[in-house]
Amino acid sequence: MRIGVLGAGNMADALAGQWVRAGHEVLIGARTPAKAAALAGRLGCAGGGLRDAAEFGAAVLLAVPHDGAMDALRDAGAAEGVLAGRVLIDCTNPMAPPFEALTTGGGPSAARRIADASGARVVKAFNLCPDGVWRMTPPVFGGRPLGVPLCGDDADALEAVGGLVRDLGCVPMRGGSLARAALLEAATAFTVGLLAAGEDPAAMLPPVAHMGDPR
Amino acid sequence: MRIGVLGAGNMADALAGQWVRAGHEVLIGARTPAKAAALAGRLGCAGGGLRDAAEFGAAVLLAVPHDGAMDALRDAGAAEGVLAGRVLIDCTNPMAPPFEALTTGGGPSAARRIADASGARVVKAFNLCPDGVWRMTPPVFGGRPLGVPLCGDDADALEAVGGLVRDLGCVPMRGGSLARAALLEAATAFTVGLLAAGEDPAAMLPPVAHMGDPR
Repeated sequence: MRIGVLGAGNMADALAGQWVRAGHEVLIGARTPAKAAALAGRLGCAGGGLRDAAEFGAAVLLAVPHDGAMDALRDAGAAEGVLAGRVLIDCTNPMAPPFEALTTGGGPSAARRIADASGARVVKAFNLCPDGVWRMTPPVFGGRPLGVPLCGDDADALEAVGGLVRDLGCVPMRGGSLARAALLEAATAFTVGLLAAGEDPAAMLPPVAHMGDPR
Repeated sequence: MRIGVLGAGNMADALAGQWVRAGHEVLIGARTPAKAAALAGRLGCAGGGLRDAAEFGAAVLLAVPHDGAMDALRDAGAAEGVLAGRVLIDCTNPMAPPFEALTTGGGPSAARRIADASGARVVKAFNLCPDGVWRMTPPVFGGRPLGVPLCGDDADALEAVGGLVRDLGCVPMRGGSLARAALLEAATAFTVGLLAAGEDPAAMLPPVAHMGDPR
């Protein structure tokens, strides 16, 4: 698959590296083309500007800090429809220390804002773990592949992103609709706040057999 | 400790049962006194009305469905200050299928509304797992006691609730301020939605050593 990556930071590095190794055609785009070229050279893929990456990708990964998401979409040509209809993977997190509230306030989720600004088929994914986890080959713990919850409204987009999750050696999880991305963003902020307090988030979830069936 | 319980349903049954066994003095209060008396008789503790339980408890557990929380607080005498300054444990969840958004909408968290309505020192706790987990003696999985995140603003209240967590054989986790209860409520709704989709929420969290340090 042709994958465009918006951003050349840690998340771009981790995920694009996996997808290059899996045989995908990847183009890294950044506001500073030299930064994109440096990462692309290291990963063995193409580099360019943000708009180059947006135009290239059948799937596009938005991998910039949340604060810069709207600027990155603008520079990628969102207002001119460059991203409309494309699969857009949103791994951003609208949060900052002390992780008491989302920086989206009471308004729409980051994922919803990104969908509205781009017209893309957005799938929220890869936002719960730091880049170090996504660099693992594979992210398997105690013999069990990591689950990656996906939230989105388009079945084909979810299927495409599910394949990219499997390329890492992970397992896609049915996170639900794009509306549920708001809950996933909050769950991530809660989890990261626990980490900041020195707690182990995994300690709070019993094995699934004990969790009952809410249906 | 003297513990008042508002409600006589599954969560009241599970948690009050543990605290009676741990040697606490417990009074179960319900809108229907016969229901409270039946549960109290089974657990070997006192029963009464909602206001009886609120007046009795140095710590009070609010264990009614979220939809009924404000009515229960009213009947417990919240408007007359009966709960003011008391430790109030909020295990409610403002959610319903299909778990796409909290039923608090974009407004204050359930925990904040309960604090505002009661003047109590609210600690959000026990809302992430179903009653079956809280009935376990003890809730220990693979040799590891379950962690219970607590969110609250009052150090003494957090310490008191931490003791009640330990009475179950669980470990209290520093969930942060009461503001973070909004994130915990959302995390719970996201988690329960995963369960409803047939997914295992625990699969999405790597061991803490892989999660990095966000500080």
